[in-house]
Amino acid sequence: MIPIADNLHIMSPSVAKAIKERDPLTFKKIAERCSKVNAYAMDINPGPLRHQAEEIITFAIQAVQESFGGKLLIDSVQEEVLRAGIAACAQPPIINGFSLEEAKLKSILPLAAEHQVEIIGFLINEKGQVPLMAEERLEVASQLIAKAEEHGIPPDKVIIDPVLVPLSWQDGTRYNRELLEVLHLLPQLLGKPVRTIAGLSNLGAGSPNKEARATVEANFISILAAAKLDYILMNVTQESNLTALNLSQLLLGEKVFTWQEVKEIN
Amino acid sequence: MIPIADNLHIMSPSVAKAIKERDPLTFKKIAERCSKVNAYAMDINPGPLRHQAEEIITFAIQAVQESFGGKLLIDSVQEEVLRAGIAACAQPPIINGFSLEEAKLKSILPLAAEHQVEIIGFLINEKGQVPLMAEERLEVASQLIAKAEEHGIPPDKVIIDPVLVPLSWQDGTRYNRELLEVLHLLPQLLGKPVRTIAGLSNLGAGSPNKEARATVEANFISILAAAKLDYILMNVTQESNLTALNLSQLLLGEKVFTWQEVKEIN
Repeated sequence: MIPIADNLHIMSPSVAKAIKERDPLTFKKIAERCSKVNAYAMDINPGPLRHQAEEIITFAIQAVQESFGGKLLIDSVQEEVLRAGIAACAQPPIINGFSLEEAKLKSILPLAAEHQVEIIGFLINEKGQVPLMAEERLEVASQLIAKAEEHGIPPDKVIIDPVLVPLSWQDGTRYNRELLEVLHLLPQLLGKPVRTIAGLSNLGAGSPNKEARATVEANFISILAAAKLDYILMNVTQESNLTALNLSQLLLGEKVFTWQEVKEIN
Repeated sequence: MIPIADNLHIMSPSVAKAIKERDPLTFKKIAERCSKVNAYAMDINPGPLRHQAEEIITFAIQAVQESFGGKLLIDSVQEEVLRAGIAACAQPPIINGFSLEEAKLKSILPLAAEHQVEIIGFLINEKGQVPLMAEERLEVASQLIAKAEEHGIPPDKVIIDPVLVPLSWQDGTRYNRELLEVLHLLPQLLGKPVRTIAGLSNLGAGSPNKEARATVEANFISILAAAKLDYILMNVTQESNLTALNLSQLLLGEKVFTWQEVKEIN
């Protein structure tokens, strides 16, 4: 399981201030920290505001790229923002993302096709909802792959996000049990290995304190690694997340296990 | 995932001493601790020695039963010891266990049939080896179920143990990745849900210190819970094991999730 950083929170006061003042330093510092822990990619989200969003994402990408050499996820629902983001990226980004919602099929998918970039496909139906049952989500997955292919985007450029939901939802744990089923059944269904991603921070929405949230996130990292999730979008500098990720890689990965490495992680 | 205690270690100095002196107090204390944390069952292993083994298991079971009201697993490869254990149990025990090895098919399976008790079936082939690949282990599972049925033991009385191996084995992590596959494929293969069990302490054989072993065990508890293992045989009084188990039940279980419970576990 490969870590992708969601550390750049547009809603955090320091980032909001840095945007307002067009000060690249805050962005560079966060990018450096993500680089140091070997994040494969960083998610760049200019926030929900339309005002100056194209300029803001261009500024953010330029600032981040000075300190981070990995891939970027351009995270927006606005076509023009995504277009500006793609233009600013030094290497092909990943678009985050599309679903069966009409607006996204119409504007975002053609853009990904035009630039032949990778794109994340959320298992969200045409009504904007995450289906509860695994079968329905798998049906959405088939449709997403088909829609992508219609636009000339091959399946190996699509990364499926089965959507972790907040544990505080009424059926939160059930949704997430079904998500594990989806991860197990997806390769079988599509007849080929398809890459998958999940956003860990969703789980803890509504948590009363940092410690409880950190505990839940670390535990779920092991669970998702065992379910063979490919990419995990998470706070990559949180110590407990890194420990859980490194341990999972050691316990379930391809390389030779040594107790010495467990001691080093501990 | 339901906890079963392997806390009664015949090889530990205090238990060995208690056996030698026929002193029930040590057994009672361990049984009380297992009872306190709501272990579903306790594993009773009289050790590899044949000398007085029948008398020892009878003594151990009587001592344990004074403080522990749950089920007992009678853990032996000797028919006569198992027979003495069954006779001493206040309620039907679980026999631990059989495999495709000739000696076990011949002596242990008929005994389980005679008493119509549950029995653990190890995914170990006729040569006494754990197959590496999931397909081979599933083949062993089918054969175990068939052998049990030949003896008049229905599948719902068999509990499959796919055998966690020490991480320090050359291919240890690969064996255990295949074990997760087995857990996912088993219900499909047999066409009915079959119960499963795994012994956690095997994992850490050869670990250099307690902390490393505890870390690995806790992490694997989440992994096994996510793979829908039914019973976990483990040190049920180890704090980190209990935390991981409770958290897994909270994150993946049927009951309603609350952040308050995470705080209480933490």
